[in-house]
Amino acid sequence: MATVLQRRADVEREGVPTLPQPYLLFLGDTVEAGYAKTAFGLADWAGDRCVGELAMAGCTVTTGLPPMSPAAAAEAGARALVIGVANQGGVIGDAWIAVLVEAMEAGLDIVSGLHAKLNGVPALVEAAERTGRRLIDIRTPPPAIPVGTGRKRSGKRLLTVGTDCALGKKYTALALHRAFVARGIDADFRATGQTGIMIAGGGMPMDAVVSDFEAGAAEILSPDAPVDHWDLIEGQGSIFNPAYAAVSLGLLHGSQPDVFVVCHDPTRTVILGLESFALPTVEEVIDLTIRLGSRTNPAIRCGGVSLNTSSLDVDSAEALMAAERQRLGLPVADPIRGGASFDALVGNILA
Amino acid sequence: MATVLQRRADVEREGVPTLPQPYLLFLGDTVEAGYAKTAFGLADWAGDRCVGELAMAGCTVTTGLPPMSPAAAAEAGARALVIGVANQGGVIGDAWIAVLVEAMEAGLDIVSGLHAKLNGVPALVEAAERTGRRLIDIRTPPPAIPVGTGRKRSGKRLLTVGTDCALGKKYTALALHRAFVARGIDADFRATGQTGIMIAGGGMPMDAVVSDFEAGAAEILSPDAPVDHWDLIEGQGSIFNPAYAAVSLGLLHGSQPDVFVVCHDPTRTVILGLESFALPTVEEVIDLTIRLGSRTNPAIRCGGVSLNTSSLDVDSAEALMAAERQRLGLPVADPIRGGASFDALVGNILA
Repeated sequence: MATVLQRRADVEREGVPTLPQPYLLFLGDTVEAGYAKTAFGLADWAGDRCVGELAMAGCTVTTGLPPMSPAAAAEAGARALVIGVANQGGVIGDAWIAVLVEAMEAGLDIVSGLHAKLNGVPALVEAAERTGRRLIDIRTPPPAIPVGTGRKRSGKRLLTVGTDCALGKKYTALALHRAFVARGIDADFRATGQTGIMIAGGGMPMDAVVSDFEAGAAEILSPDAPVDHWDLIEGQGSIFNPAYAAVSLGLLHGSQPDVFVVCHDPTRTVILGLESFALPTVEEVIDLTIRLGSRTNPAIRCGGVSLNTSSLDVDSAEALMAAERQRLGLPVADPIRGGASFDALVGNILA
Repeated sequence: MATVLQRRADVEREGVPTLPQPYLLFLGDTVEAGYAKTAFGLADWAGDRCVGELAMAGCTVTTGLPPMSPAAAAEAGARALVIGVANQGGVIGDAWIAVLVEAMEAGLDIVSGLHAKLNGVPALVEAAERTGRRLIDIRTPPPAIPVGTGRKRSGKRLLTVGTDCALGKKYTALALHRAFVARGIDADFRATGQTGIMIAGGGMPMDAVVSDFEAGAAEILSPDAPVDHWDLIEGQGSIFNPAYAAVSLGLLHGSQPDVFVVCHDPTRTVILGLESFALPTVEEVIDLTIRLGSRTNPAIRCGGVSLNTSSLDVDSAEALMAAERQRLGLPVADPIRGGASFDALVGNILA
């Protein structure tokens, strides 16, 4: 035990690694906007920390940031080139390598959330050693993550949970963070996935952590904080998802949230990619999240529902949110639409 | 999706890796029986696949198997030397290396469940390359574990679950396997931890699997089988353990058990190592296991309770089991004591 606790203390002192910012966004030779979601997410949520974008010949996608060479970006203060696009298979394109080497020679580190590791490409490793730059694979968790302890930490925490994957948990946590900061509340967005980590400039890739350390990883992601401080933690998966529930439960236990917000897409009826599994109802998610989450925070409560109404027109969206509000007795809002309903959600979280 | 499914098909064809047996049990220079739990477990449960034991000068522990040199063990049919002891810190003792090299020179592979990796010791790696032998670290999961699908598999499955860690889940699954085989039932013990994997000659180190693949790892551990075949799956941790619940839930979802048995130690009142957390009751474990397990097997049921009564005399143990049987309305037995109550537990599982 002494060894584990000592190791834990060392990790907590070091904290979760942080990324070098500002960024130069690399778009490669991408021709489909769908492959550039990371770049768009960064431009939207960390635009103040992106000096420009770098596209190769043939690229037809743009974030609207000024085009910039690696040297010009370094001159403008950039500390890293971020790979803002994915291609099929998540590999590092051969055509990209010369550009990435040029960026290192200009003084930039390289940050990637691709499945393929920068550190697995010999030409990049050689250039990094030669130039003294870093290759940062954000899907690689930090070493020496401790096992969880369940110890109650100071400060307040919110976790976004979901009826499934990919329906707005990251966006909701970011929108709440922005709203909290706008109200003058001391708050941090705590990222748990690739794009979130790039936006936040740090975080924990929860799905890449060895399962024995899953709760411990969530614990070091949101350490002790001042009593009025809020951590707004990006959720992952769903406790009802038969593939990923282990990730979701470790994150729930380790986050020990005071408040959670359920994210839901009303047009989805089955689990994404596992069509024989019905989507749980919002009520089922609320009930099971309270039951499981109360193990590490007996005071856990649902703050409301974040509804992804992107497929509905404004009248249909408002009508659906009103009906859900009535049915559940909770604030229901779409953070993308914002407005009074979103203010009510924020108000109930802070109540 | 095509890529994931193809990769899944490849993994399923390969299956879970198997270990070379029979074994020579290595006891090192151990002077405390507590450090030789793996060797004792192997002698008890896989004695027919252990040709002998090998102790170094100063060792005071014995499993009762015949002492044997590596060369004699190889002559007797052994295919691997198994490190059956741990020392403080789980490291590979310098004094052991010459013996392990000698074993490889005699034609034996080396199998280890220590935290320190055989493949991290240059002298062993060099000897393995020279002799063509394998260094098998069973805490290292196989490559290319697929994500879970939740697909219903053929055959029957039992999972041992617990109110906590380290109170008899492995022992219960092994005892049930032995009882099933004695009744002529086609059954496999499916191991999920180090000692269990060595006993079974294969398995999946569930606590070392990356959390995104936790349910998928459990799925490939108990593949499709004939309809009357039983997999008896060793549980890990507890869904109530704030450090390890992610492991337990991924294993529960991926195992999709038809029947589970709750393992409990009546003298334990708090979670091992996390004393501020009360142990859940057996009823709480039954209720939450059914709720969570029904996601991948709606027919899941509790087969009974395995009570670890090792701290009680025979009369107290019988009285406690009778009281628990009455209270829960389920078979309650201690597999170590066996007898009619254990037969009743087996009967109810098969009912």
